Amino acid sequence: MTDNVSARDYGRLIVQGADRPGIVSGVSSVLAEHGANIVALDQTSSDPSGGRFFQRTVFHLQDLSVKIGALNAALEQRLTEELGLTYRLVEARRRKRVAIFVSKADHCLLDLLWRQRRGELNVTIPMVVSNHPDLGDDVRGFGIPFFHVPVEKGKKPVAEKEQLNLLKGNVDLLVLARYMQIVSGGFLEELGVPVINIHHSFLPAFMGAGPYQRAKERGVKLVGATAHYVTEDLDEGPIIEQDVIRVSHQESAQELQRKGADVERLVLARAVTWHCDDRVIRDGNSTVVF
Amino acid sequence: MTDNVSARDYGRLIVQGADRPGIVSGVSSVLAEHGANIVALDQTSSDPSGGRFFQRTVFHLQDLSVKIGALNAALEQRLTEELGLTYRLVEARRRKRVAIFVSKADHCLLDLLWRQRRGELNVTIPMVVSNHPDLGDDVRGFGIPFFHVPVEKGKKPVAEKEQLNLLKGNVDLLVLARYMQIVSGGFLEELGVPVINIHHSFLPAFMGAGPYQRAKERGVKLVGATAHYVTEDLDEGPIIEQDVIRVSHQESAQELQRKGADVERLVLARAVTWHCDDRVIRDGNSTVVF
Amino acid sequence: MTDNVSARDYGRLIVQGADRPGIVSGVSSVLAEHGANIVALDQTSSDPSGGRFFQRTVFHLQDLSVKIGALNAALEQRLTEELGLTYRLVEARRRKRVAIFVSKADHCLLDLLWRQRRGELNVTIPMVVSNHPDLGDDVRGFGIPFFHVPVEKGKKPVAEKEQLNLLKGNVDLLVLARYMQIVSGGFLEELGVPVINIHHSFLPAFMGAGPYQRAKERGVKLVGATAHYVTEDLDEGPIIEQDVIRVSHQESAQELQRKGADVERLVLARAVTWHCDDRVIRDGNSTVVF
Amino acid sequence: MTDNVSARDYGRLIVQGADRPGIVSGVSSVLAEHGANIVALDQTSSDPSGGRFFQRTVFHLQDLSVKIGALNAALEQRLTEELGLTYRLVEARRRKRVAIFVSKADHCLLDLLWRQRRGELNVTIPMVVSNHPDLGDDVRGFGIPFFHVPVEKGKKPVAEKEQLNLLKGNVDLLVLARYMQIVSGGFLEELGVPVINIHHSFLPAFMGAGPYQRAKERGVKLVGATAHYVTEDLDEGPIIEQDVIRVSHQESAQELQRKGADVERLVLARAVTWHCDDRVIRDGNSTVVF
Repeated sequence: MTDNVSARDYGRLIVQGADRPGIVSGVSSVLAEHGANIVALDQTSSDPSGGRFFQRTVFHLQDLSVKIGALNAALEQRLTEELGLTYRLVEARRRKRVAIFVSKADHCLLDLLWRQRRGELNVTIPMVVSNHPDLGDDVRGFGIPFFHVPVEKGKKPVAEKEQLNLLKGNVDLLVLARYMQIVSGGFLEELGVPVINIHHSFLPAFMGAGPYQRAKERGVKLVGATAHYVTEDLDEGPIIEQDVIRVSHQESAQELQRKGADVERLVLARAVTWHCDDRVIRDGNSTVVF
Repeated sequence: MTDNVSARDYGRLIVQGADRPGIVSGVSSVLAEHGANIVALDQTSSDPSGGRFFQRTVFHLQDLSVKIGALNAALEQRLTEELGLTYRLVEARRRKRVAIFVSKADHCLLDLLWRQRRGELNVTIPMVVSNHPDLGDDVRGFGIPFFHVPVEKGKKPVAEKEQLNLLKGNVDLLVLARYMQIVSGGFLEELGVPVINIHHSFLPAFMGAGPYQRAKERGVKLVGATAHYVTEDLDEGPIIEQDVIRVSHQESAQELQRKGADVERLVLARAVTWHCDDRVIRDGNSTVVF
Repeated sequence: MTDNVSARDYGRLIVQGADRPGIVSGVSSVLAEHGANIVALDQTSSDPSGGRFFQRTVFHLQDLSVKIGALNAALEQRLTEELGLTYRLVEARRRKRVAIFVSKADHCLLDLLWRQRRGELNVTIPMVVSNHPDLGDDVRGFGIPFFHVPVEKGKKPVAEKEQLNLLKGNVDLLVLARYMQIVSGGFLEELGVPVINIHHSFLPAFMGAGPYQRAKERGVKLVGATAHYVTEDLDEGPIIEQDVIRVSHQESAQELQRKGADVERLVLARAVTWHCDDRVIRDGNSTVVF
Repeated sequence: MTDNVSARDYGRLIVQGADRPGIVSGVSSVLAEHGANIVALDQTSSDPSGGRFFQRTVFHLQDLSVKIGALNAALEQRLTEELGLTYRLVEARRRKRVAIFVSKADHCLLDLLWRQRRGELNVTIPMVVSNHPDLGDDVRGFGIPFFHVPVEKGKKPVAEKEQLNLLKGNVDLLVLARYMQIVSGGFLEELGVPVINIHHSFLPAFMGAGPYQRAKERGVKLVGATAHYVTEDLDEGPIIEQDVIRVSHQESAQELQRKGADVERLVLARAVTWHCDDRVIRDGNSTVVF
C-alpha cells in the first residue's frame, strides 16, 4: 500500500467524525470547486447507521502550495463548521521528520535507515537517540546524527528531559525501534507527536517481557510481532500492523528470537510507511488502515 | 471483504471508464440528490494522468426498489452521456443466481454448497451440472437440482447445446468447480454471463494439465491455486484470487494434490463471494478487487 | 506431512525418554535384527546434553502382524529395561477410532467427516455425539451414528456418564469439534484416551469465550485458531497446531468469525491427521510434531 | 531450521544413495562404535521400495578434530564400499567460505553481510565481487574486501577468468545476490563449488527478465522469490526455497518490486543458511531440505 504519489501538487485529505449523509459528496464538492482531481479515495464507516466515518483522499491540484490556504479555509467551513468533522490536509511532498529511539538490537533500526536511504520510506530522519552508545557508528555511517542519552536507574526524568530537548519541534513522529525503556505518560504528553513501538510478540499474546522464551515454553507454532501506537498503558495501544512466522519444536528460544527479528523489522517498516503516507487513522483503541 | 450489507434498501454502484477530473464528485452528487447515503466507497485509478478509473460505492436509500428507476435515469444522464463512463447499478437484496459445473472431484463443489447453505454466500444455486453422475446424491442432499450432461468424445457441441438450454436466462454466473472439460468460445459467447474457473496451480506457473505432478518434479516449495474469469484462451483469463501452501520433499505428488485441494476451495469461495458482492472489476486481462 | 504409508506390513515406532548416547543405534539395531527396513526417521532432542529424546520411525516388515509380538518383546527388553525409555509400537494398517463431540456449529464436523469419506483421514468414525439434535441428519447422511446427549444445567455429571457409556472401549481419540461445553477432569481421566480441541483464537491470545468479538475490539490484524490436547486447565493444554488469517478494519466481528471458521477447520484437520499418523508427541505442556 | 549446534566437537554426516535395508542401522552403528552421540537425525526416502535415500545426522564426538580421520575411514569402508552410498562428513566448527557476486541492487547483499556480522549466518565472507563499483563503500564498511570486475560487452570470458582467479581455492560457496549477469557453464565447471542464485519471481512463473512488470501485467495476486542452485540452464536449477507476498491492483510494478525485495532477501538468507548448515541435498533437479 506504499504511496508512490509523493511529488509536488499532490495532497492528502484525511476526514473522520460521526457518520451522516452527504459527507463524501461534501468533501468531493469542495475539492472539485477548487480544481482538485481525486486520484484515490478510501472510505469506511464503523456502522451504516450512527457509526464513525473515516475517509482518505489523495488528489492532484496544480500549484497546491499556493492554493492550499484557500482550500484549507473552505474545508474548515464545510467540514468542521457545517458537518462537525475532523480533518487533516497534507501536502504529499512534505516529508515527515522521524526520530528513532533504539537500545542495542540493531535489526529494526538498520532496516529503517536502509529503507530511507534507498528511497522506500518517504521521510527524513533528523536523529537517532539511544540509551547505549553501541550503534553510534552504524547510524553515523548513514550520515544521520546519533545522540547518546543514558537512562540511569532512578533518573529517567532527567533522561526524558534531555530527550525532549532534542525532539521538541524537530520531529513529526517518534519510532521506538526495540527501545528497551518504558516512556512515561508525561513524556508522551509533552512530546505531542505520535509514537510507534514494535513489540516482539503477536499482541495480546505474550504482553510484557521475554515473549520468545514464553512462546517456547507455551509450545506455540507461530511467533509474531506487533507495531502499535504508544499510549500510557504498556503494550495496550492501537495496533497498526501484525505478522507471524511458523516455528517448530526444533527451534530454541534464541532461534525463535532470530526468526522473530525478521518479522519485527518488516512489521515496523510497514507501520512507519503507512503512518507517513497518512494511511492510518486511530479509532479509539483500534486503527483504520487504508 | 465479504459484504454484510445485503438487506433491503442497500445498493451498489460500480463505475469505470477513462479517468478525468470530477468523477467522484459527479457520482456522489447524483447519489446525494436522490437521498442516498454512501456507506462504503473504494476508488482507484490505473494512472493519475490519463488512466482508467474504477469505483465501487455502497449506499443506503430508503425504498430503493421504488426509486431505482429514477436513480438509474439520472446516472445514465450524468455518467454515460456527460462523462462517458460505464456503470452497473445493483440492488444488494437481489441474490445472484449461480450455476456450478463439476466433474468428479467434490471438494470445491461441496464447499460452495455448504457456504451457501450456512448463509455465507449470498446467492441462489439453481442447478449443478456434471458430465458424470457421481455427485448427484450429494448435490440433491442440499435440495439443489442436479443435471447429468455427458460429454461424449467428439460430441461436445451436442453437450454444450444441452447445457445452454439449462442455463440460458436462469443464471447470472457460472462456476467451473473443477470441471475437467474445456468450454468453447462459442459456448461462452452464447451464455453471455461471466464464468469463473478454479485452476489447480499458481498461474502462470504450471498452466495446463497435471500441475501437481509437474510441481513435484520441479521441486517447488509452495503449491497454489488460481481463480480466474474464463476466456477463450485456456488458463489465460483475468485472475481474481490466488493463494499458496507450503510443501516439502516429504510429500508425494498425491499429497501435494490433497494440500492443494484445501487451497483450491478457499480461493474459489473467495472469488465467487467477491464477484457476487460486485467487488471484482475486469481491467483488460487483470482485475481490480475492492 | 500426511502419511501415505498405511498399507499392511508398515509399522510406526515412537520412542521418548531421557537422552543418552546410543539410542538411535539401539533402536535401529533391534529393527534390523528383526528384518525391518526403516522408511522414514525423525529424531530430535530438547538439549544435546541431558535433554529429552524423541524419535518417530516408520518401517516396513514383511508379515508384520505375525512378527509384531516378537518385535515388541525385543523392544521392551532393549528400550524399556536397558535404556529406560518409553515407546509405542503401532501397525499402520490399524485405523484409529475417532469420536467427535459437537454442538451447533457444523464447519469443523463436516470437514472431518468429508475428509474421512474421501480417504484423506485414515481413521474410522464410530460416532458423533452432540448436546443438540441439530446436526443429526448431516451426520447420518455420511452413514455415521449420531447420539444426542443433552447437557442440562447443573446435570453435567449425568450427561458425562452417558457420554462415557457410549465412548468407553470404543474409541482411541475424542475430538471436540466446536463442542461448547467444558469437559470435567473426571471425564478426561475416566475416558483414558487423548482429547483434541479446536479453540477459536491464536492461543494464548483471547483465551476463554468470545474471542472474535474481543479480537475486533482489540483491533488485531490477524485472527487464528489453535488445536490442542485437552487438559483439566481450560485452553492451557499442549498446542498441536495453529494458523492465522489476515483481517482488516472493514470486517465486523461476525465476519472475523466466518474467516476464522476457515482457519479452524484446517487447523483441526491437520491436528487430527498428524495425531492419527502418530506424528505428535507430548512434551510436558508442549508438543513435538514430526 | 537454523542450526545452533556449531561449537567444537559437533559433526554432520550427510548420506545419500540407492535405498536398501540397513542403512540407518549401519550409519548409527559406525557412529556408536566411535563414541559419537547422535543429536539430531532426519531421514527420508523418495520411495519405500527402490527409491533414493537421504539422511542428515548431527552428532557429538569428544575431540572430533583428532578422531575425524579414523571415523572417516570407517565410514568410507561401511558406506561407500559395502553399501554403495555417497557421504559427506563435516566439522560444524569449520565455517564455510562464502563469496558474493552483486551488481547494483543492495538489498540481498546488505542482508547477508548484516546477518553474518550479527552471528546469524555461520560463515566467513572472504570477498564481494561486483561488475559495478557502486556498492564498494558499503561492503568495505563491514570490513570485507570488495573487488570490482567489470563485464564488458563481448568480453565476458576475460571477466570470468579474473573472477575465477579471485575465487579458486578461496571459497566453498558462491552466492549471486542479484548479480545481473549470466554465468557461463564453463565458469561453473571451472569454479567447482556450489552456486546459489536468487530469482525475483516464484519460479517457474515469470522465468527470465522483468518478472515484476510481467506479474503486474498478468494481474497476479502474489509476487514471490526463488533461491536455487545455478546450473547451465538459466532459472532451471534445483529450487532450495521460495516464498511469496500478497499484492493488489493498487500497486504499480515498481511497488511490486519493492515488496518483492523483502521476500528476496529473506528467501536468499534462508537458502544460504540452510546450505551452510548442510541441510540441503540435491536430488536431481529438486532438493531435499532437512
